[in-house]
Amino acid sequence: MPSEIPSVRALHAWRAHNRLSVTPDPPDASSLHEIFQNSTINALLKGVYDGSMTYGELKRHGDFGLGTFNALDGEMIAVDGDFYQVKADGVAYPVADDQRTPFATVLFFQPTLRRPLSGPLDYEHFQALVDGLMEGPNLFYAVRVDGRFRFVTMRSIPRQAKPYPPLAEAAKTQPIFHLETVTGTLAGFRFPDFARGLNVPGFHLHFLTEDRKAGGHVLNSVLERGELAVDASARFHLELPTDPAFLHADLGHDQKDDLDRAERGK
Amino acid sequence: MPSEIPSVRALHAWRAHNRLSVTPDPPDASSLHEIFQNSTINALLKGVYDGSMTYGELKRHGDFGLGTFNALDGEMIAVDGDFYQVKADGVAYPVADDQRTPFATVLFFQPTLRRPLSGPLDYEHFQALVDGLMEGPNLFYAVRVDGRFRFVTMRSIPRQAKPYPPLAEAAKTQPIFHLETVTGTLAGFRFPDFARGLNVPGFHLHFLTEDRKAGGHVLNSVLERGELAVDASARFHLELPTDPAFLHADLGHDQKDDLDRAERGK
Repeated sequence: MPSEIPSVRALHAWRAHNRLSVTPDPPDASSLHEIFQNSTINALLKGVYDGSMTYGELKRHGDFGLGTFNALDGEMIAVDGDFYQVKADGVAYPVADDQRTPFATVLFFQPTLRRPLSGPLDYEHFQALVDGLMEGPNLFYAVRVDGRFRFVTMRSIPRQAKPYPPLAEAAKTQPIFHLETVTGTLAGFRFPDFARGLNVPGFHLHFLTEDRKAGGHVLNSVLERGELAVDASARFHLELPTDPAFLHADLGHDQKDDLDRAERGK
Repeated sequence: MPSEIPSVRALHAWRAHNRLSVTPDPPDASSLHEIFQNSTINALLKGVYDGSMTYGELKRHGDFGLGTFNALDGEMIAVDGDFYQVKADGVAYPVADDQRTPFATVLFFQPTLRRPLSGPLDYEHFQALVDGLMEGPNLFYAVRVDGRFRFVTMRSIPRQAKPYPPLAEAAKTQPIFHLETVTGTLAGFRFPDFARGLNVPGFHLHFLTEDRKAGGHVLNSVLERGELAVDASARFHLELPTDPAFLHADLGHDQKDDLDRAERGK
């Protein structure tokens, strides 16, 4: 049996110190709280929309997370092992194992922190509140909120045609959905700034209605009440595509402005 | 048995296409060509020099690589499963399993490409030559050269005292070694630009003499003749520290100038 590694011990100590309610750990410490990611956000910003990974493979690495689909065909949200594709019509469809993804981030969600939230709490203050509960800005955090929202504003990017435009360009024609008085689940991640280039720094959340029929990439929201669950992770596994579009993409320079336009509607 | 994942298939196809001599693959595809890294280069630049990982743990994730030691006590180089600590006296000492590291990068080295090199080849042209053999700039590459060098110029940073200075500051007093007409091994990595913040973009190599008695962090070299071996990797695993020094370090901003000063002697 492999010995428990120090970072896991430290997370356990943190949990104990904070008297958190904790789900049982899985027997294999090597996948405990490991975030698994296919490709990079920079590649997506550059229009690398055809990935080599199937959802069948992706599901082996997590039951929770977000991402997109080949040809940028909508927004992916995964909750409790159920994977959904929110297409440009705002409707959530189940994802088949043979569908492929050019970018996705998942983990097996095991919260290290749970907390009731009462609002009204706008999106900015929600993020500040979660930041205040974190163990510093330099770990990876999976974030889930099940709750009732005054509103959630979302987008879903429509399927793109080749030659693919950059993401900031594709996002210009994105349909925007505004759901009022809605119950459902926010799911996503908070990544540290130093992971810029790989993933979206800060919060990146998708939404799924309670009936699992609609959702999208969250641009704004106001929470009325809900339960927050956070999974703090010190482990990140990156799996890069090896197709020519990825291998030869110009991924080097800082794409902060493109990222803000593409992911935050700025 | 897990099915072979697409990125591994693509690397196999690349090998076949290039008629490379290849070592046998290990049975478990999940660790094939996986680069394992403890902490980030940004944390090291900020003076986070006490890591939580032991070399005993690190050795479970690779037999080849480079890194440093707690309190920044010298340069680590690992070749063929043997780990060495080059201290500020330029001497290579074996590493004990209970020694700890604040930053290290390793993998189980299984070359995807081998090629004889004939010189004279200075450090800049060596890097350009290897770049020309790569499958694009966006994968991770472990790089090894066994050969005879006209000279190798190296440094090894001396052990630091608390409160730790930033790496660029510590590097100002680094002893520099210049070995003429020397046989030995270059070992290290070429990281893509988008991984800036996590590791050193471009080439980062350490050197070890053939008798395994001396070495250091390479600043310059001229190769006379040797054999190049490269392990192309699409898989990267990051394990972050969870001690307060790391959790609260300011790792966000671009540290390119600090990196050049600390790692390239510029």
